[in-house]
Amino acid sequence: MIIVLKSGSSEAEIAEIERRIEAMGYRAHTIRGELRSVIGAIGDDRGKDRLRALESLECVESVTPILQPFKLASREVRREGSEVRVGGVTLGGRRLVVMAGPCSVESRLQLLDVAARVRAAGAAVLRGGAFKPRTSPYAFQGLEEEGLKLLAEAKRETGLPIVTEVMDPERVDTVAEYADILQIGARNIQNFSLLRRVAEVRKPVLLKRGMSTTIQEWLLSAEYVLSGGNRDVILCERGIRTFETSTRFTLDLNAIPVVKKLSHLPVVVDPSHGTGHWEYVEAMALAGIAAGADGLIIEVHPRPEEALSDGPQSLKPDRFAALMERARRVAAAVDRDL
Amino acid sequence: MIIVLKSGSSEAEIAEIERRIEAMGYRAHTIRGELRSVIGAIGDDRGKDRLRALESLECVESVTPILQPFKLASREVRREGSEVRVGGVTLGGRRLVVMAGPCSVESRLQLLDVAARVRAAGAAVLRGGAFKPRTSPYAFQGLEEEGLKLLAEAKRETGLPIVTEVMDPERVDTVAEYADILQIGARNIQNFSLLRRVAEVRKPVLLKRGMSTTIQEWLLSAEYVLSGGNRDVILCERGIRTFETSTRFTLDLNAIPVVKKLSHLPVVVDPSHGTGHWEYVEAMALAGIAAGADGLIIEVHPRPEEALSDGPQSLKPDRFAALMERARRVAAAVDRDL
Amino acid sequence: MIIVLKSGSSEAEIAEIERRIEAMGYRAHTIRGELRSVIGAIGDDRGKDRLRALESLECVESVTPILQPFKLASREVRREGSEVRVGGVTLGGRRLVVMAGPCSVESRLQLLDVAARVRAAGAAVLRGGAFKPRTSPYAFQGLEEEGLKLLAEAKRETGLPIVTEVMDPERVDTVAEYADILQIGARNIQNFSLLRRVAEVRKPVLLKRGMSTTIQEWLLSAEYVLSGGNRDVILCERGIRTFETSTRFTLDLNAIPVVKKLSHLPVVVDPSHGTGHWEYVEAMALAGIAAGADGLIIEVHPRPEEALSDGPQSLKPDRFAALMERARRVAAAVDRDL
Amino acid sequence: MIIVLKSGSSEAEIAEIERRIEAMGYRAHTIRGELRSVIGAIGDDRGKDRLRALESLECVESVTPILQPFKLASREVRREGSEVRVGGVTLGGRRLVVMAGPCSVESRLQLLDVAARVRAAGAAVLRGGAFKPRTSPYAFQGLEEEGLKLLAEAKRETGLPIVTEVMDPERVDTVAEYADILQIGARNIQNFSLLRRVAEVRKPVLLKRGMSTTIQEWLLSAEYVLSGGNRDVILCERGIRTFETSTRFTLDLNAIPVVKKLSHLPVVVDPSHGTGHWEYVEAMALAGIAAGADGLIIEVHPRPEEALSDGPQSLKPDRFAALMERARRVAAAVDRDL
Repeated sequence: MIIVLKSGSSEAEIAEIERRIEAMGYRAHTIRGELRSVIGAIGDDRGKDRLRALESLECVESVTPILQPFKLASREVRREGSEVRVGGVTLGGRRLVVMAGPCSVESRLQLLDVAARVRAAGAAVLRGGAFKPRTSPYAFQGLEEEGLKLLAEAKRETGLPIVTEVMDPERVDTVAEYADILQIGARNIQNFSLLRRVAEVRKPVLLKRGMSTTIQEWLLSAEYVLSGGNRDVILCERGIRTFETSTRFTLDLNAIPVVKKLSHLPVVVDPSHGTGHWEYVEAMALAGIAAGADGLIIEVHPRPEEALSDGPQSLKPDRFAALMERARRVAAAVDRDL
Repeated sequence: MIIVLKSGSSEAEIAEIERRIEAMGYRAHTIRGELRSVIGAIGDDRGKDRLRALESLECVESVTPILQPFKLASREVRREGSEVRVGGVTLGGRRLVVMAGPCSVESRLQLLDVAARVRAAGAAVLRGGAFKPRTSPYAFQGLEEEGLKLLAEAKRETGLPIVTEVMDPERVDTVAEYADILQIGARNIQNFSLLRRVAEVRKPVLLKRGMSTTIQEWLLSAEYVLSGGNRDVILCERGIRTFETSTRFTLDLNAIPVVKKLSHLPVVVDPSHGTGHWEYVEAMALAGIAAGADGLIIEVHPRPEEALSDGPQSLKPDRFAALMERARRVAAAVDRDL
Repeated sequence: MIIVLKSGSSEAEIAEIERRIEAMGYRAHTIRGELRSVIGAIGDDRGKDRLRALESLECVESVTPILQPFKLASREVRREGSEVRVGGVTLGGRRLVVMAGPCSVESRLQLLDVAARVRAAGAAVLRGGAFKPRTSPYAFQGLEEEGLKLLAEAKRETGLPIVTEVMDPERVDTVAEYADILQIGARNIQNFSLLRRVAEVRKPVLLKRGMSTTIQEWLLSAEYVLSGGNRDVILCERGIRTFETSTRFTLDLNAIPVVKKLSHLPVVVDPSHGTGHWEYVEAMALAGIAAGADGLIIEVHPRPEEALSDGPQSLKPDRFAALMERARRVAAAVDRDL
Repeated sequence: MIIVLKSGSSEAEIAEIERRIEAMGYRAHTIRGELRSVIGAIGDDRGKDRLRALESLECVESVTPILQPFKLASREVRREGSEVRVGGVTLGGRRLVVMAGPCSVESRLQLLDVAARVRAAGAAVLRGGAFKPRTSPYAFQGLEEEGLKLLAEAKRETGLPIVTEVMDPERVDTVAEYADILQIGARNIQNFSLLRRVAEVRKPVLLKRGMSTTIQEWLLSAEYVLSGGNRDVILCERGIRTFETSTRFTLDLNAIPVVKKLSHLPVVVDPSHGTGHWEYVEAMALAGIAAGADGLIIEVHPRPEEALSDGPQSLKPDRFAALMERARRVAAAVDRDL
């Protein structure tokens, strides 16, 4: 931590802060500047907020951390990228992984139809929501356990592993019975009770960035899962909230190279939620691959105009197949397989 | 809903959309404009997303709702403001309610000391966190049930009702045993499992706006609680995330008159989290009252520089007492009591 | 500046950076931490970007300034608040100053009518746009010099000094002939050619914060005017751009106490542009006063529903008069006069 | 426009609004809904704000435009993409155009060195700032006309056309003497005096999106230039301001497919300003191409650690050459040449 003092701080004030820093177990190192003094608190301060509280002293102007606050998620702990294995699929390797399927599981017919078609087009994982976090209590909330059973049937038919969302700590075990990857939705990225619960399960976790979560906070949420004992975390960029309204969210592809620098975790991109409009999905999917993502997660629906949720951002199966063709070419151009 | 068609849409396309709208149980009313046609879907569409899915048709440019999507939270359903009673305290009446206390319950001594002092200064409710949602898994996570017991003791000593956060559906009953008001934190504003659970409890709910929640979404989260059977919802503005970094969040006081226009629910302001710096708390507390808030929630700590959480934004008890003096004067200037 | 090195930096790399720092005229002071080293560059680095460029070295993780980059605008340079005198009016003193009038000067009749009525209600300065920065080239662009002449006539009739916007360096002298205060609009806050030009004029400058300008950048724009020789700068908070759409902008009242801490300049609040809806103007005007603003600037129009610009946010004269009554009471509650 | 009335509006109020709409030259078409009525104002309302002012009537809830407000910039006016020719280079065709060079022209040696190297690597246009819009008045402000002369020399030596910024209406003619493309910087995107001036010049204009400019506003700024008579507008996405601080701005690649849908104008991407860190430039440059951009603009400096501006985001020439190699492969994968 770097503690910046207000100008005009006295030697007694400096000594008092040095005393407090050392009482907390750090070494204090003071630089007397021309206009103000700065005290470095030396030691590993990650996750320890007590130094921050010094900011409430009258003579302190600011307290700034030097280290990134996450450890296990950090590239410094592990130089090479992590790989997460799901069934026969590996996330984080040279081969990109595309997850596709409907926003919500709506019916057996809908799901099996889509599952077969996304598999034919090259998807390696089937997505589909059984428990749906809906902004309005009056909107369709998902088929719940019935939806999980349909996902299991689709998996038997196609061989595709399943990614599906879990919203509730009490439901983690149930969902984990059916799912191959547990998805934590954007709205639960700082639901720490849920993060602690999925950390106890032996299933990979797909951690969607919250709509106003900084990359640092996102990696700290990953740290909850990692430090709870589950090393199989996949990050998913799905758009942040900004002032721009021509897209539903602003898919932040900058997050890909930033995460790749800071962390060893694999990261996939969700251009469906990120843009909110099917017409923009392909461009942003290709851009995500070019930016270095390890995979994509895309919503596909046989009749988007009748979807019970997220119709406007769902691709028809043939558009998805066309996207996959183009994605293969861009992947090859950046030395990845698909 | 208003469905705007792309320019050059054919009569057959218009007829097809009219057919779909009527099949969903709405009346269709088409306006043929000079450059493009617009179809109104007449009927109560609140919370029903199926019309939105028409946006995925090629000939449709956009689908825009006309009604606000919430019902029970709406001022149209209830013209006069709601009042929420807690012990002898009423939120939403002429008298403002100030809730104060430490960010976290840290020890018996700390809590009892603060409780007595905020009561003496005029606080009507004691706040204090026992379960703490912390960005980092390595930060102090609260005293948990031990903290709840200390809050109960402080209540016995001071007579102040208690507001404290609940983070986990499984813990709702436990927290409700001790708390008079259940707080839903900003990070759980769209934790719909938790909202549904607190709707089943007979205790008022303090619903903090999420850091990137629109006012419409915030009222929809209130709608989860209201439609689940709990009519005692108190809204709390606590700052949104913007580009500005000189404050920790941007306390959005505009939300006060907007909420007062759209909804009958009482609304309080949290200038501690909203600004993140004790030096700005008083100005924003007074501004919140002038803007029409029904109360304040403020962090007070006897020694902020030693706080285990949120030290930089905590007031010392004597500063809090001074704030209360000034708050009384501003309250009187806008015809409120304190 | 604080230069943080990547972990594993060698002694040779540290020495090289120390050498570069000293070559630029600073003293280097290195703190060797457990995980990474930090080098302080001691000296007044305000406005000097050359140290920042060190961030492009491979071994450097980040370069962070310690000092606020502005000087003349800083509270450290001048402890007491500045006062700006315009005609018989003083901005920055105990007495609040309310500026009011139409968004655009539309006609002689409209302007003289409004001017008389805002004066009667207690406004001390008349606002009105002659040159209008409009998002669309097809929108009403103002009466230009004809508008300035009408403002001059209104000044003669009412005695109120005039604040009006200048958009173009070539027009500064013309506008300064008629105006008592030159307004720099939000869209020109970083139009540095214009800032340099108004710095040369002997008229106070009202500097509206840009819709995405940080407080630091805003004060740096003030610094352009101050360092150019014009000490009469008035800041104006008028709303920033956020994700929230229920108001046109998000009036950021937090900026008031922050500016008062960092700077000696007077600051006024524009609740009309800040909210974009007349129904919210009064609440935010009162809140602005309670937060510590030195004045208000408010749009008033005799028939807002026929206004050529900004009708939805304009108050009718009688609503403005009612607002002034309430504003007087809130002002008194925070020991200000109005 | 769609005018939504408050619930409970009377027939007299509806008739009054219909009367006003027709008095303004539109046809009124009223839909009486179950909960509220909606009136369509039929006619071309682009750029005409007068209907908006109806929002200030008590019985009106909102007024919403149906049409995009720009015309000449619109894809509806021109279905095929526009091409802008500069020297032998065409922007908007199958071949991508890369503009590269230093942030600021600092010296003859620096510029000629960079110019030769970016040309060798495949850049088709040389960028370099002579007039620099700097946040701080104390920062390096550019070599001004001396810088323009050096750019002209570099053009003679390399044959590369020049893009450079113009900040001031009074300087447009001078800059246009030397420049092949006039750049309008992000901070001047709503400097309408400047936009009107460059519309009168016979040189292409590179219009950088402002840091908080919506795509609609950006296209309206383009409309100022187009409607002023200059059809050669190139758009440039360079990052918007969001809450995320790990990048300097958030490069919004979503803008590429959105602009391509709404407009016929060519669009290029600036990953240097968009990210602010050289380490992220290549990933975002490749992503920009994959998203459908017509070109790139990239900062290159022989010794970024000594740059007088924007060192942290500048690439060394050999990194730029490597980026160009990869960019060629991605371009080919999306059927573009480079």
